[in-house]
Amino acid sequence: MYRPEIKVVDCTIRDGGLINDHRFSDDFVKAVYKAASLSGADYVELGYQLSKTQYSPDKYGRSKFCDEDFLKEVTAGVPHGAKIATMVDIGRVELDEIKPKKESSVTLMRTACYVKDIDKAIAYVRHFHDKGYETTVNIMAISTALQPDLEEGLKQLAECPVKAVYVVDSYGALFSEQIHFLVNLYKKYLSPKGIEVGIHAHNNQQLGFANTIEAIRKGANYLDATIYGIGRGPGNCPLELLLAFLKNPKFNLEPVLEAIEKEFLPLREKMEWGYIIPYMITGILNQHPRSAIALRAGQDKDKYAQFYRGLVNDRESI
Amino acid sequence: MYRPEIKVVDCTIRDGGLINDHRFSDDFVKAVYKAASLSGADYVELGYQLSKTQYSPDKYGRSKFCDEDFLKEVTAGVPHGAKIATMVDIGRVELDEIKPKKESSVTLMRTACYVKDIDKAIAYVRHFHDKGYETTVNIMAISTALQPDLEEGLKQLAECPVKAVYVVDSYGALFSEQIHFLVNLYKKYLSPKGIEVGIHAHNNQQLGFANTIEAIRKGANYLDATIYGIGRGPGNCPLELLLAFLKNPKFNLEPVLEAIEKEFLPLREKMEWGYIIPYMITGILNQHPRSAIALRAGQDKDKYAQFYRGLVNDRESI
Repeated sequence: MYRPEIKVVDCTIRDGGLINDHRFSDDFVKAVYKAASLSGADYVELGYQLSKTQYSPDKYGRSKFCDEDFLKEVTAGVPHGAKIATMVDIGRVELDEIKPKKESSVTLMRTACYVKDIDKAIAYVRHFHDKGYETTVNIMAISTALQPDLEEGLKQLAECPVKAVYVVDSYGALFSEQIHFLVNLYKKYLSPKGIEVGIHAHNNQQLGFANTIEAIRKGANYLDATIYGIGRGPGNCPLELLLAFLKNPKFNLEPVLEAIEKEFLPLREKMEWGYIIPYMITGILNQHPRSAIALRAGQDKDKYAQFYRGLVNDRESI
Repeated sequence: MYRPEIKVVDCTIRDGGLINDHRFSDDFVKAVYKAASLSGADYVELGYQLSKTQYSPDKYGRSKFCDEDFLKEVTAGVPHGAKIATMVDIGRVELDEIKPKKESSVTLMRTACYVKDIDKAIAYVRHFHDKGYETTVNIMAISTALQPDLEEGLKQLAECPVKAVYVVDSYGALFSEQIHFLVNLYKKYLSPKGIEVGIHAHNNQQLGFANTIEAIRKGANYLDATIYGIGRGPGNCPLELLLAFLKNPKFNLEPVLEAIEKEFLPLREKMEWGYIIPYMITGILNQHPRSAIALRAGQDKDKYAQFYRGLVNDRESI
């Protein structure tokens, strides 16, 4: 039987926006919010709430800031729409400018951090919680975290009012047994306090969906996915695959399929994501994708063997 | 530590040829054989050995028949090249025309069959074995097999001189727990006789590589893969991902990366394979991809929601 505790978080706009500086048209954001809501997604993450002193609104689109007027406009006309989530990065948000929940369309405030910044993330969680929000902490680059540091962080997180803490495979480097290990480790600290475990899996090695399933099998209940797997580079666990896998009858595949044919096929002509070999290479090497991003922007974008040799040589004795 | 028993079978030409009636250029086949050999693949499957009375050489390319002159030409100049494999389908081969091993470049004869034809496959195995070949049986559409029929077939296979028997997820419908179950079931009957289990996973749900890993974890030692995941529709487990995962130092990723950039990127402009929604839909519905193949050949190739509705309606009471 299905687990009613499972929450699907569509992060199409927030994560996909990393490809284009969040310059989606309002109509596209509306279409995504509507499709994900109709499909039964519990939350739709409509972008970041980042500081306009650090990110210029001239360069970045409205989803980088998620002002209240933007959120109202793109979610209008969808009865019983999904709850709205937004993300912040440590040190890139003006906390004082975050409105109290009762003045905001947002329900869920997600804080992304590295292991070393978990204490800062906890301060954010308390801040957002005090303002009335649900919260998650998304621990990035978990495939490079040292276990004692991670366990220390999880121990602290267990004492704060966070709703879920995520395993984030930023580099798309993890395999099923590692996902099992990490979800179990998170649960050891978090489950006694009723805090849920989440999974956000990148698709560098075509394991985004598979690793999400493996996290579900071990008890993760907050599941991130994006329509057609959109996201920077290899992208993410595709929402359509996840919805087809989940057994809860509230989920409905058709609105997502319609969004893919109407919105995502044209978009895919203009920007790339998916199984792209340089990102596969950074994935198998458990590295940040920055070298692949740089490669894809230049003339040598398809020099895969040379790119691989370069990264492997960089790993010689140091 | 790695398992030296593991055999990687590159089936790029045989499986990829289902897209284009095996009309690859000889140069392409040569490049694939060379790259797969240099990468450390144990076997390279260069095509079928099918009856020319059933398949016209005017319509189908040389890989549909794998005459000895073809095999010699495309493998020339590769010292210590991989062993050569070819496949036959039940009822589509002139057994008498298969040369004895000592007159052939082929080492491994693979027989593809459905569960109901396992007895015929066993007759083929005995025939090929008597002629001096290694043999495998590749049981297709395993996701629709009835368990008692499958177990009866495995019991019989355990008594014949077959080297390995494959779990073939033809429809790309299986999840990790089902892969675990099937590999364990195969092993129950085959391992006592020293017969290996193989895995051939399709990628409809982006689980081709993941399911191959899960089969490895449970003890499968014959692993099918194709360069850049080529294959009809969604394609297969990508060889480059598999090689990067395997720990045996004999495997080498670079020749495959070079083949992708030089041979497969241009090819991908001319034919499609990969994550294509209609094949994802037949995968989640555990169906033969024929409806998706038909859709992709017509005007409505991107009408995903309508295609899905049609297939779901077909499944109403019967």
